[in-house]
Amino acid sequence: MGDKVYKKIRVVGCSAESMEAAVELAVAKASRSVHGLAWFEVIESRGAISDGKVTEWQVTVEVGFRID
Amino acid sequence: MGDKVYKKIRVVGCSAESMEAAVELAVAKASRSVHGLAWFEVIESRGAISDGKVTEWQVTVEVGFRID
Amino acid sequence: MGDKVYKKIRVVGCSAESMEAAVELAVAKASRSVHGLAWFEVIESRGAISDGKVTEWQVTVEVGFRID
Amino acid sequence: MGDKVYKKIRVVGCSAESMEAAVELAVAKASRSVHGLAWFEVIESRGAISDGKVTEWQVTVEVGFRID
Amino acid sequence: MGDKVYKKIRVVGCSAESMEAAVELAVAKASRSVHGLAWFEVIESRGAISDGKVTEWQVTVEVGFRID
Amino acid sequence: MGDKVYKKIRVVGCSAESMEAAVELAVAKASRSVHGLAWFEVIESRGAISDGKVTEWQVTVEVGFRID
Amino acid sequence: MGDKVYKKIRVVGCSAESMEAAVELAVAKASRSVHGLAWFEVIESRGAISDGKVTEWQVTVEVGFRID
Amino acid sequence: MGDKVYKKIRVVGCSAESMEAAVELAVAKASRSVHGLAWFEVIESRGAISDGKVTEWQVTVEVGFRID
Amino acid sequence: MGDKVYKKIRVVGCSAESMEAAVELAVAKASRSVHGLAWFEVIESRGAISDGKVTEWQVTVEVGFRID
Amino acid sequence: MGDKVYKKIRVVGCSAESMEAAVELAVAKASRSVHGLAWFEVIESRGAISDGKVTEWQVTVEVGFRID
Amino acid sequence: MGDKVYKKIRVVGCSAESMEAAVELAVAKASRSVHGLAWFEVIESRGAISDGKVTEWQVTVEVGFRID
Amino acid sequence: MGDKVYKKIRVVGCSAESMEAAVELAVAKASRSVHGLAWFEVIESRGAISDGKVTEWQVTVEVGFRID
Repeated sequence: MGDKVYKKIRVVGCSAESMEAAVELAVAKASRSVHGLAWFEVIESRGAISDGKVTEWQVTVEVGFRID
Repeated sequence: MGDKVYKKIRVVGCSAESMEAAVELAVAKASRSVHGLAWFEVIESRGAISDGKVTEWQVTVEVGFRID
Repeated sequence: MGDKVYKKIRVVGCSAESMEAAVELAVAKASRSVHGLAWFEVIESRGAISDGKVTEWQVTVEVGFRID
Repeated sequence: MGDKVYKKIRVVGCSAESMEAAVELAVAKASRSVHGLAWFEVIESRGAISDGKVTEWQVTVEVGFRID
Repeated sequence: MGDKVYKKIRVVGCSAESMEAAVELAVAKASRSVHGLAWFEVIESRGAISDGKVTEWQVTVEVGFRID
Repeated sequence: MGDKVYKKIRVVGCSAESMEAAVELAVAKASRSVHGLAWFEVIESRGAISDGKVTEWQVTVEVGFRID
Repeated sequence: MGDKVYKKIRVVGCSAESMEAAVELAVAKASRSVHGLAWFEVIESRGAISDGKVTEWQVTVEVGFRID
Repeated sequence: MGDKVYKKIRVVGCSAESMEAAVELAVAKASRSVHGLAWFEVIESRGAISDGKVTEWQVTVEVGFRID
Repeated sequence: MGDKVYKKIRVVGCSAESMEAAVELAVAKASRSVHGLAWFEVIESRGAISDGKVTEWQVTVEVGFRID
Repeated sequence: MGDKVYKKIRVVGCSAESMEAAVELAVAKASRSVHGLAWFEVIESRGAISDGKVTEWQVTVEVGFRID
Repeated sequence: MGDKVYKKIRVVGCSAESMEAAVELAVAKASRSVHGLAWFEVIESRGAISDGKVTEWQVTVEVGFRID
Repeated sequence: MGDKVYKKIRVVGCSAESMEAAVELAVAKASRSVHGLAWFEVIESRGAISDGKVTEWQVTVEVGFRID
């Protein structure tokens, strides 16, 4: 168990499907510019409504990744 | 960007299926008496258990809509 | 409405599928050692990431059950 | 366990007697204009002081009721 | 100090000018449909950005008013 | 002041009388299976409503007791 | 509505009777050294347990008073 | 960087003008009885309403000052 | 409503003028290195005091912007 | 990554030495009755004072362990 | 268990050594002007950085003491 | 007191020694890629347990630094 340091950033994923899809989208997009994403924490869940229907799930996640 | 005012109300949707279904139900029901629902925020997620199984997802959302 | 007392315990379910599956797993496992689980409250949602993909949903729930 | 939807509203009861009396007053008054109140949650407790004595208990409750 | 009951509702005011203007707008609009607004509490302050400039202050207030 | 360790558990007392009675009930019931309860912290207060009247006070307390 | 300034201090009242009695005791004691107490807010409620019984209600209140 | 100790007190400023004016008033008044005020943190913003207009901004600040 | 992802970063603006000016400064500075800032949320408001006067408003905002 | 379930319990460690020693004591004591403790989260840090000196560090941790 | 009243004040200790040293400094300094300090609660931990090194630990504690 | 802007980022330091060492590690690592770190705030403290012993202290800090 050597000394390690992680950075955490906040990303919001928006999906028409589900809260899980919104999180997966956020994680997938973040992983393109940052290597080694290790975990996420759900910070906030909200969404858009149009004509009385949920049209978008917007989930804010804080993702952590190791920095060298 | 003229001056606008929104009102927010809290609604709890209960569904046997999923958290998303509970939110959609709450939004659908609220849209019958209020016009122009624009967004929602998830406030709390809980549910009922029976015989060791989740039988109901109860999600409280705060929904916002413009008032004239 | 006689006098009743409930106990609440915190359980974390981990599932590769969805947040609902994580909750259901936690509830199912808790119901093996505790009788009469009546409700749950979602306390925290987080998860593991591997190769830029969500590999595990970890949801902490507080479950309540009556004690005699 | 069919699909149900509840609305939650915030009411502040003020009583010279006790916190319970303040809650009961808020619930009683709310029940005059809303049918089917089912539960309440205490949000905040405060009060007024005069001449070094508590003269009013002001308790904010969020009450829930089913909507059809 | 007789028994009194107040209701609290959440309103979001949006103004291009300032946070105070957003609150005043929310209060003014709410007072058109509700009589006897007595106080407000700031719940959240956010806003819109366009071309690197703040274009709208969006302040959520909870306003209280007496009900008979 | 030697080294001591305490455990904390959450219990919900339900009483038709008052919030204090609900706490006392929770504490009394918990003390039957756990020895040495030393203190409690009120976590949440809520209750049931029937016919516009409070019929049950439900108070969640976290109680602490020494473990050897 | 001229310009006014209030100070707020935190006081913990301990009573064997009830939460209300604990608050009233805190307010009464604080009013001996500070004039013009105007309001209080309940911050935390806890207490002591002995032999499976609640022996003391400890309520922390924040009291406000005008300063000249 | 020698060892220093600061005390923090809570003050509520009330102004008819703006939230900033309320903070400045609270700070100015506190500085009459306490020397060396160094910083403040906004804790809560609320206010009074009369005839559908904001008549008073009430901002609670926690101010810090060094003690010797 | 296609799939979108936003990133959120925290910035603290410091201004001698007002809280709004502090927010606007933070937003303006952040927009120099990040394109497409879309919204902000006020996280914390504090400031510096010198000679009994507020000399600086320090407002922390979380700003969101779309990432491709 | 198969399906796993963890339980979390709250334990308070009290030590005259340091906050770390209080946590280590709580973890050590909990591990005597529970197998497979995997992680902890610090929930609250407080302590006792006597004759103007800190005589005890009391740290509440939530510890998690896998259940089969 | 007679009726007792405690006051709580917030103090920030700053030390170059450790968080414990910062708390002990705050407690020691507070005990010079207030008698009978009985307990403390850690409210916030922060600090100063210079040249990439932590140069000061700043811990805010709320300390309680009995008043007669 | 000219206009200044700071950015805040979240970093998690992991150390086998102590919470202070975890913070110092996070600060030291962050200072390699960012110049002018000025202060930190402790956001969360947790850790890993193995064989009933704390094997790693994991402290999340939010560090602030001036941007030009």
